[in-house]
Formats: sequence, C-alpha cells, structure tokens
Amino acid sequence: MSERILLAHGSGGKLARELVEGSILSELSNPLLARLDDSAVLEVSGKLAFTTDSYVVNPIFFPGGDIGRLAVCGTVNDLSMMGAVPLFLSLALILEEGLARDDLVEIIKSVKQASEESGVSVVTGDTKVVGRGSADKLYINTAGIGVVAGDVEISGSRARPGDRIVINGPIGDHGMAVLSSREGFSFSSLLKSDCAPLNGLVADMLAVSRRINCLRDPTRGGLATTLNEIAVQSGAGIIIDEARIPVRDEVRAACEMLGLDPLHVANEGKLVAVVDAEDAEVVVERMRANPYGREAAIIGEVEPERPGKVVMRTRLGSSRIVDMLVGDPLPRIC
Amino acid sequence: MSERILLAHGSGGKLARELVEGSILSELSNPLLARLDDSAVLEVSGKLAFTTDSYVVNPIFFPGGDIGRLAVCGTVNDLSMMGAVPLFLSLALILEEGLARDDLVEIIKSVKQASEESGVSVVTGDTKVVGRGSADKLYINTAGIGVVAGDVEISGSRARPGDRIVINGPIGDHGMAVLSSREGFSFSSLLKSDCAPLNGLVADMLAVSRRINCLRDPTRGGLATTLNEIAVQSGAGIIIDEARIPVRDEVRAACEMLGLDPLHVANEGKLVAVVDAEDAEVVVERMRANPYGREAAIIGEVEPERPGKVVMRTRLGSSRIVDMLVGDPLPRIC
Repeated sequence: MSERILLAHGSGGKLARELVEGSILSELSNPLLARLDDSAVLEVSGKLAFTTDSYVVNPIFFPGGDIGRLAVCGTVNDLSMMGAVPLFLSLALILEEGLARDDLVEIIKSVKQASEESGVSVVTGDTKVVGRGSADKLYINTAGIGVVAGDVEISGSRARPGDRIVINGPIGDHGMAVLSSREGFSFSSLLKSDCAPLNGLVADMLAVSRRINCLRDPTRGGLATTLNEIAVQSGAGIIIDEARIPVRDEVRAACEMLGLDPLHVANEGKLVAVVDAEDAEVVVERMRANPYGREAAIIGEVEPERPGKVVMRTRLGSSRIVDMLVGDPLPRIC
Repeated sequence: MSERILLAHGSGGKLARELVEGSILSELSNPLLARLDDSAVLEVSGKLAFTTDSYVVNPIFFPGGDIGRLAVCGTVNDLSMMGAVPLFLSLALILEEGLARDDLVEIIKSVKQASEESGVSVVTGDTKVVGRGSADKLYINTAGIGVVAGDVEISGSRARPGDRIVINGPIGDHGMAVLSSREGFSFSSLLKSDCAPLNGLVADMLAVSRRINCLRDPTRGGLATTLNEIAVQSGAGIIIDEARIPVRDEVRAACEMLGLDPLHVANEGKLVAVVDAEDAEVVVERMRANPYGREAAIIGEVEPERPGKVVMRTRLGSSRIVDMLVGDPLPRIC
C-alpha cells in the first residue's frame, strides 16, 4: 500500500501526515521544521535576499544529480548571485499519483545532502498530490532566504565598461547531461551535470574583492542569455572571446552532433561574474583554489559600444552577435 | 501565436522574457520585482515567519475565487496563523503547454488584487512550462515572509486546558464550492468559496488580546484535522459542540447529499483560534466587527482529559470522537 504515492497522501489528513513524517521529516528534520506549524519563525537581521524556483527537470534522476539536488543548488545559487549567504529553504512538492515512494525517499536524501553541503536548513514545506497524468512524477519548488552583508552591492545592472567577464568553469554540462540521459543517447555516459552549490565559491570571491559588480548563474538559456540580460540591464556592451570560453570536448561533440550551441545550453554549477578590471586576476586566482572554480577564466569584458548587445570574437577571428535563446531546444532542463 | 502558452515560454530566453514582461510584470510590477535579479533584496528586521504552499486546485476558476486569489490568500493566511504581518511573496508558476494566455492574465490580475487587499508585494518569481499532459493548466507556488511582533507567541503546541476554541465563521464553503463547480452539480450556483486573506482579522484579534495561544487555518482536511493537529501538538484534549459550529444550510445539504462531513471539508477564509478563557469573549466581539469575522463563535474548549483527542458533543446529546481525515474525498481542493 505504501510503495506508491496515493491521492490521499495529499489530503492534509492521516496519510499525508504519515508521508511527511515517514519520508520527509525523518530525513530533513531540524527543530524549526519539526514544529509543523503553518510557518517557520526565524531570527534573521540585516538585508535579506529572497528567491524562488520551481524544478520540473525530466528525467528526475540524471548523471551528476537529481531533481532534489537541483532544487537545493538552484535556489542556493540564486541567493548567492546577490552576494547573499543562503540560510533557509522552503520545500514544496507536487507529486504525481503512482510515484514510487522509494524514488521520493532518494530525492529527499539528495535534498538533505545538498542542504548540508551548502549549509542551509529546510525550515518549512508543503506536499500536494495530483492524479496520474496531471504531473510528471514530481515537481519541486524551493524558495530561499539569505542575508546580504551591508557593503555588498551586486546586481545585473552594475556592469561598467572595462569590467572583466569571469566564468568558473566549462559550460553546457548540465543541459547536455540531462538531454542525453532523457533521450538515451549512446554518449550519455560521458556527460555529467555540473549541478553544485556555489555559495562557498562566492564567499571566497567576496573575501578578495568587493568590486564584483554582477553575479549570475547561466541556467536556462545558457551563458548567451545571461550575458544578454546583463548587457540589457546595465545598458552596456559585452565582448567575449570564443577561444577563452571553457567547453569540455564531450559537450562540444554532443552539441555539434545535435546542432546546439553550448552558449545556449543550461548550467547548474556555473556563475558569471562581472569584476572590476583591477581585481579580476586576483578573483580568478582565488576561484581556482575552490573545488567549484578550478577552471575559472576571464572570457571577455564590458565595453561602452553597442549597449545591450553581446558580441563574440570567434576562433576564426571574425565577430558575431550572440543572441538570447529564442525557441527552446531543451525543455524541462531544470 | 501568443494566445496559447508554448514550451518555449519556459526556455529562459526571449519568449520567456516576453511572457514575464507582457503578462506578469505588467500587472504586478513594483521596484523590487522589476529589477529581475536572481533574488529580491529586502530590508526586514525582527523575527521572521517563512512559509510555502503549492496550489493545484481544479478547476482553476471557481465560484468565489480562482487559483491566483487562492495562492495569495493561502500563504498570507499561513503567515497570519503565526501572528506574523505578511509582507512579501514569491510567485512561481508551472504552466501546461497550451494554457490560454487570457486565463493566465486573469489569474495574474487576481494575484494582484488579493496582494493589494492583503497589503503584500510579490517580489520574486519564476515561470516554468511543461508539455501537454505533464500538468493540468497551471500550478502556482507562493512562499511568504512576514514579521512577528516581539511579544507574540503563537504555536499549535500552546493550547492549555480551559482555553476556548474560536472560529470566525461557517465551515466547508471552499471545499463544497470547488467540488460542486468541478463536478457540475446543479446546486453549484448556491455555493461560493470563502477564499480570503485573514491578516487584517488576525491584527484585530491581536489588538485586543495577547493570550491567543494557537491560530490555524483549517484548509485541507478541514476543521477536524486542524483540531486534531492542535490536540496532538499541545498534548491536550479538545471538546467541541456540534450545535455551535456554524455551517451554511446549502453546505450542509450538499455535504449530506454527497456523504461528506463538513468537519472534513476545506476552508480558505477560516481560522481556528485557541484563546485564554478570560479573553475569549472580547476576541470574538472584535472579530465580529471585521468583514471576515461577522459570524465568529466560541465552539468548544481545551480539556485536560483525553490528550491528543478531539471529541464532539452532538446535537443529539451524545459524544463522538472526531478523527483526522484518512482518505481524500476531495483531491486538488487547494
């Protein structure tokens, strides 16, 4: 009876309580969550960062992670991109009737592990169940709260001409890992999601420079979309060098085979930083000392020309406009 | 092209931006949300309340409200039930490919209206699109942040023998309105959801008493489940009087016809308060002066006997145990 999720597990009654206590609280419990009141009450002071994301990735288990790890890392990273120290998460599950309870338990274990790695606590949650065919296994929403140090001022609108564009490693790993796992491509065993919490890396970066003007994680829409957003929000141009953008050989090969541009492929453990030119080298050096920044590189700079546009100098020596993603070759990548 | 939601509206690229700016920001915009950074940065101080809920109600439009109003009121109420003043909401949408864009716009307008009524701001959000058959029109998650005054101490675990059980009006309206609308029952025109934000009512109550020990909104699982939760969390017994529990005639009739117990039917504009005996009358009097508390009543009390149990004195003079909901006669009610 208890091996599959039933509609009644979402009823708010006895079975719902048994599911929450038996499969969720048992893994994640902490004094705040265990109270099971309508809200968690937290002691926080200062400037708060607040963010939310829903995760609908298909498949729910993929090389390098699963939807649980993704739901923690994605929201931890969104907080980190404001320079915030992530502290608290909410966890809301939408389960499809018939989901294997073992799959749920495994995902909750991933939530626990990623929470511990990133030092955040799940303090409030919700579980809903919908009928077969009204969801696809499970969807997760996390919202997150972090605290921003008083002297940190980071926003997508703060890029200034001369600033350097920095990335913490190779692009496209997450999107290609999920896609190839979903489609069962023969090369899928070579690809692994980069899904990781970046709050530690951001703390390291802020420890050596307060002239990090923008931070953003290039998830859906990839590096190209993120750079375009920064260019538009800041009213500045961005120029990047194709030769300096790290891409793993196996990701490049998979992209070529499928006609995808790695610049448009989602990442889940990458950040783009726009850093004052004077501090860029020291920031990159510090990043390389962190496990999630070993391949950090300066890949371009902000320029006064072509405000709102992103231009790439190609390996062939020509230049081309890099546009935002328009269609969606990779639905449900996160 | 733009009349139905496409998968590409969830891509993170141009179409996603057009959807967010054209149909969501245009309604909800405020300076925090309009920045479109990865997180909103808020100035808040004191004890924070933090909560989340996903809304999967079917149908998305029902008499007395829609999923947008529900998603705001439900989370505002969860914060209010901790005695918090709700301030900020996140709004995360999971859209099914093919959803009519007009429906989305109407729901966002409801979000705006309910936010204004309750005085909260939507400050951060997310939009995902899944393929046809992987969701049912749309699901909404809201998380909320509120501030708790220093001297407010409310929890489901604070009910003490002698305390009075107070409710702000008739039970079962929401569940029966949604169910009858979904099933197309002929009496559906008589029923209307009570979906409403209760933060103003709670503020009124706290203005006349600080001896409100528990507050909870009896949503999924209904009044019976909420009272059982309080009884278990507080380690106390609860006794209620059937004759004093307000139920509209049309709700009672619909429940009888369908074999449902109004005590198990969901509400979305109701609260249960456990109030010190000395303050109960003054609290009820104040509640009746609020539009959402006109029919407030004392329906029972906390007793030292039978800890963890809820007992009802029936109209016939006998007593029966009131249990939590076990199955789920009303899936996807919120």
